[in-house]
Amino acid sequence: MKEQALREVLDSLTLEEKVGQLVQVTPDFFDASGAITGPMLEWTMSNQERYQSGSVLGTTEASQVREIQAQYLAQSRHKIPLLFMADVIHGYREIFPIPLALASSFDEELVQAVARVSAKEAAGEGIHVTFSPMADYVKDPRWGRVLESNGEDPLLSQRLTAAYVKGYQGDNLKDESSLAACVKHFIGYGAAEGGRDYNTVDFSDLVMYQDYLPSFRSALEAGAKLVMTAFNSVRGVPISGNQSLIQQVLREDLAFDGVLISDWAAIQELIAHRVAENQKEAATMAFKATVDMDMMTSCYQRELATIVTEQHLEHELDEAVWRVLTLKNELGLFENPYRGLDKLVATAELQEQAFEAAVKSAVLLKNEQVLPLQKNEKILLVGTKVATGDLLGAWSCVGDTAQTTSLASAFQTEFPQLTSIPLAADASDLAEKWPEIQTAALAADKVVIAVGEAGDEAGEAASKTSLRLKPQEVDLIQQLSQLNQHCIGVIFSGRPLVLTEVVDHLQGIIAPFFLGSQTSGALAALLSGRRDFSGRLAMGFPRHEGQLPYSYREMSTGRPETAANHGQRYLSNYLDEENDALYPFGYGLSYNTWEYQDITLSQEPLTKDAPISLRLTVTNQGTQTGSENIQLYFTDEVAQVIRPKIELLDWQLVSLAPGESREICFVIHSDQLAYVHQDLRRYPDSGRFQLHLGKNSREILASFIVEL
Amino acid sequence: MKEQALREVLDSLTLEEKVGQLVQVTPDFFDASGAITGPMLEWTMSNQERYQSGSVLGTTEASQVREIQAQYLAQSRHKIPLLFMADVIHGYREIFPIPLALASSFDEELVQAVARVSAKEAAGEGIHVTFSPMADYVKDPRWGRVLESNGEDPLLSQRLTAAYVKGYQGDNLKDESSLAACVKHFIGYGAAEGGRDYNTVDFSDLVMYQDYLPSFRSALEAGAKLVMTAFNSVRGVPISGNQSLIQQVLREDLAFDGVLISDWAAIQELIAHRVAENQKEAATMAFKATVDMDMMTSCYQRELATIVTEQHLEHELDEAVWRVLTLKNELGLFENPYRGLDKLVATAELQEQAFEAAVKSAVLLKNEQVLPLQKNEKILLVGTKVATGDLLGAWSCVGDTAQTTSLASAFQTEFPQLTSIPLAADASDLAEKWPEIQTAALAADKVVIAVGEAGDEAGEAASKTSLRLKPQEVDLIQQLSQLNQHCIGVIFSGRPLVLTEVVDHLQGIIAPFFLGSQTSGALAALLSGRRDFSGRLAMGFPRHEGQLPYSYREMSTGRPETAANHGQRYLSNYLDEENDALYPFGYGLSYNTWEYQDITLSQEPLTKDAPISLRLTVTNQGTQTGSENIQLYFTDEVAQVIRPKIELLDWQLVSLAPGESREICFVIHSDQLAYVHQDLRRYPDSGRFQLHLGKNSREILASFIVEL
Repeated sequence: MKEQALREVLDSLTLEEKVGQLVQVTPDFFDASGAITGPMLEWTMSNQERYQSGSVLGTTEASQVREIQAQYLAQSRHKIPLLFMADVIHGYREIFPIPLALASSFDEELVQAVARVSAKEAAGEGIHVTFSPMADYVKDPRWGRVLESNGEDPLLSQRLTAAYVKGYQGDNLKDESSLAACVKHFIGYGAAEGGRDYNTVDFSDLVMYQDYLPSFRSALEAGAKLVMTAFNSVRGVPISGNQSLIQQVLREDLAFDGVLISDWAAIQELIAHRVAENQKEAATMAFKATVDMDMMTSCYQRELATIVTEQHLEHELDEAVWRVLTLKNELGLFENPYRGLDKLVATAELQEQAFEAAVKSAVLLKNEQVLPLQKNEKILLVGTKVATGDLLGAWSCVGDTAQTTSLASAFQTEFPQLTSIPLAADASDLAEKWPEIQTAALAADKVVIAVGEAGDEAGEAASKTSLRLKPQEVDLIQQLSQLNQHCIGVIFSGRPLVLTEVVDHLQGIIAPFFLGSQTSGALAALLSGRRDFSGRLAMGFPRHEGQLPYSYREMSTGRPETAANHGQRYLSNYLDEENDALYPFGYGLSYNTWEYQDITLSQEPLTKDAPISLRLTVTNQGTQTGSENIQLYFTDEVAQVIRPKIELLDWQLVSLAPGESREICFVIHSDQLAYVHQDLRRYPDSGRFQLHLGKNSREILASFIVEL
Repeated sequence: MKEQALREVLDSLTLEEKVGQLVQVTPDFFDASGAITGPMLEWTMSNQERYQSGSVLGTTEASQVREIQAQYLAQSRHKIPLLFMADVIHGYREIFPIPLALASSFDEELVQAVARVSAKEAAGEGIHVTFSPMADYVKDPRWGRVLESNGEDPLLSQRLTAAYVKGYQGDNLKDESSLAACVKHFIGYGAAEGGRDYNTVDFSDLVMYQDYLPSFRSALEAGAKLVMTAFNSVRGVPISGNQSLIQQVLREDLAFDGVLISDWAAIQELIAHRVAENQKEAATMAFKATVDMDMMTSCYQRELATIVTEQHLEHELDEAVWRVLTLKNELGLFENPYRGLDKLVATAELQEQAFEAAVKSAVLLKNEQVLPLQKNEKILLVGTKVATGDLLGAWSCVGDTAQTTSLASAFQTEFPQLTSIPLAADASDLAEKWPEIQTAALAADKVVIAVGEAGDEAGEAASKTSLRLKPQEVDLIQQLSQLNQHCIGVIFSGRPLVLTEVVDHLQGIIAPFFLGSQTSGALAALLSGRRDFSGRLAMGFPRHEGQLPYSYREMSTGRPETAANHGQRYLSNYLDEENDALYPFGYGLSYNTWEYQDITLSQEPLTKDAPISLRLTVTNQGTQTGSENIQLYFTDEVAQVIRPKIELLDWQLVSLAPGESREICFVIHSDQLAYVHQDLRRYPDSGRFQLHLGKNSREILASFIVEL
């Protein structure tokens, strides 16, 4: 539809119809019987109001979308199609690795491909908008939604967030296999105090611009059409009613002119936050903050027409509705309200992509010559994660754990001499099964212990104070380590865990997080050595909960602990624990040995306009094809504000056959050395910088000084 | 000295002499031999420069001060007396409870009296300035310096901070028994990330004004003469070089015109912070931020004269020196450079005050009819804290643990049938002594288990990730609980601990923190029931380190957990732990039962000008004289920014004989309901408020609604 025609649509709407475009409800509101039940009844919503609602979230299949849209178009006066949204976080029906796992791939192309095929599948089921990617910066694994994040590094998160957006949205939203991306949660949600979900957030503007905004900026630069407000407050006011923050930062600095939607019930929750007295105040705050859509509360539906009339906000209402109509138009809904429906994507395409993503996301943390497993070895597979499909992780949309292949099943194919002893999810049967386990462990060449979090132990509203394995799982590992010196832990989780108690009892450790539908096949391929591990941690595994929040990007202090003064007093350290992570950001092992040679920095000076290059030759000295992640970090020696002791500058992925070499070239522009100054502007200072080429954020192989 | 004469002193100084007034060194610099050794040598300080230094910190006796002052006055050209400062944190030689313990008294008069007598003792030893009180707001017990704080409540901290200042400074600094108070650490030091000392700090201006500034404001309103800068950064810049923060907040908003001194080496540490390239840059930043005195670095001494000349900062230098000379003059040093020396305070006065403070600071956390101990009972006293004088806590100045009475010694006098079995500080002899302990525990009527932190496990640079007792101490308690059902833990610490593992194994628990020189006598008086417990926690004891940072003043969220929805999902809670403290702020038991009757709120409306009153009658229903702390909290129902779910409004202490009653009246002014708004101004809004009369921050006895 042309802009002029769309403008006419807007002008043709009544005040109530305009408000309706800003109201989002669940499919329950369109019960086929037309009955007014459930939440609709609570809302005291009339039949007319129902058919004025502008969008629906959370449908679970194509037929449902088709029915609701048809019913709506038959009943509504204006015939503007409904917009359908859903939480396609890591897949719709075919489930991909959780974002925290996929981030371990450090692979923008892979992330984009995953998002693309997810979009295809979901669009075929009638979805138009996905509530993804999550751009929240987080350095606290107590927070359950760390699962949806891209980890602890703003640069990695920026690049992957943009890749998700490009994948979902494709080249053109009119393409019916594309989804519009809703980047979330603006802003600061990951900084919940004590890692407790929905808890208070506080930071300075400097830190907001430095750590929390960049991924939103990159998502919007990549074209993300929607933004979702966070549940939390910043500057003392919940975001969904925070006029100054949204206006100054999102609408002005980030120049966002798309649809801003509240998170679930977040407008109503301004009352629970005690910054609004009632629905009318809540609706007023949110609307003045330019929150365009009210997700699943009756605040806008009940109060907004009155507010607009009383406060003469007709112009603001038109602007909000215009943003919604524009989105519907960009998606081609006016031309085809049944956009995308039933255009199915091939199962093989989905499964292959999910398998590939799973292989590239798993991280090998420890391997004292126990992996790969040999085909003819006697393997004992034991633990709480052996015979279950609970491998998808939270927010797995319509993914079905009952349909998910178990480890036992996939490993049986791979290792003929496998004995599987599954334990109940809570390991309550450990004592009962111990005699059997003991016998099998003594007879086995190697023991694979599959344990970890249940799918619902991470994700939204799944914050934890203890990040340890269950006590029975720790017991299992410690006891097995007495019986067999070839124990390999496959430790599932939606977050970095504290593995301090078990690390010394295991000769091999794999962190698969949750790898999605193809978890078991991917792990069979990795453990057998058919594929190499290429995942590197997007977030460090802490040593103790008492270290949190923690990031490898810790800022300079006046009393830094260094290798030289380590363990002395009157430094910024703990009496009872190391400062750093047990496994740091960027860490991960490969089956191959990688040689870095001829590391040379170009001789030309770095200037604002002229970049320099760092070259090296990487060789796969191992015996199988594999992938390496060459990481470049930097340190700004002196700045106007405190800076991280080390931070990621760039990385490159290479895949090489045994014996193969490749020349790698990092081109370094001055802008990559920029930082946010006290005036909140980001630019590089002249001065000295250290470049660090590393295996990970702790293991540095070569350092150089560069002057800008 | 009159102002005019002082002005002439200033004018008579050379540039280098002026700079010297801003330099603070240790007594080593005035070695009696006149030799240039140690740090002086490192500084490349000349003899002339030595005798230009303006002040000295850390002398340990009167004779030392006398000698240094005499040497200095003989050698210096200008004859301006040296200023002597020291860390009189909780006493000089006679040690009082650590501030966190003393805060449990909630007793402003007591705190003022303690500070007064501490000042007398220290002034007699030649000290002029104490680096106390610490006004840092803190809600993270991992941070070791929580020991020096007044706990987690800004209002309690404000009042006690002011009481310290009044006590130290007395009515008149010319009074030679007074010290000038240096309030510290401006600002935010207690918010060190991860509770790790010296670590990065970040918060919004709103939170700074709301939580961190009030105690500084009250200290300055009480007349504190000096302020110390914090080690940490805020708004991205270390405080000692943070010009905008000091100018806007300290010098303007708080109107502070006294001496601003750096913390130890903090100016030099601007280099470690990587915001200054060298000493000259560091000195420039600090000086421009109006840091008047450089504590123990050579930055000012080496660089400031050049900086002043090059940048034409003569006026700013004169202002800084003027502030220092004014302080010396206010202390009467020009009239008597040997001010206060050898004016001894009576030992009995010190000891009585220290005993009284100790009695009023200990907190009784649990008592299942096991306390008080009876004189004729067979008592086993066992643990790591039985035969040691390590009961003073960190920052105990020249207090001597070797001279401190042990629990075993004091309890022997109190309980004739006492068996004491001391364990080594690290409890390494537990296995060896277990047979003896076992026999004694079976024979005893009651077992007192004295365990806890060593003195140097809390305080500066004593951050910890685990706040549990040592594993051997936990074992000891758990094993003893199997043998004797009357186990009482006396658990020493410099911070709130996580007692989750031991709480169910003890029938009685006492939290003495560190009570100072009179610890053992005070605990004997309390455990025998000669005195009642009146201490109430100034900071809650958490359930798990994974909850931190935590305060009872947690802010409203959109999804609050309440009694009604407790344990449901999609609330701001943890999957594996309760939200609240194990023992909350304000909590503490008494031997007596206290009845609150006739609780009535005055009928007149609350207005900006007219306060209201809340009256009640309190009766001691117990069998001995005791003290009760009646606590009043409030909730601002709706505000413009998020507010705590509950916060302290006022409290009253009463001491009553058995059967005695007293009418208590709280007068509530609208200003007490004020809060900091988005514009950083503090004022009350009209609206509804809830008043809560409570035993502590969790146990509310009566609530009222008030409209303003």
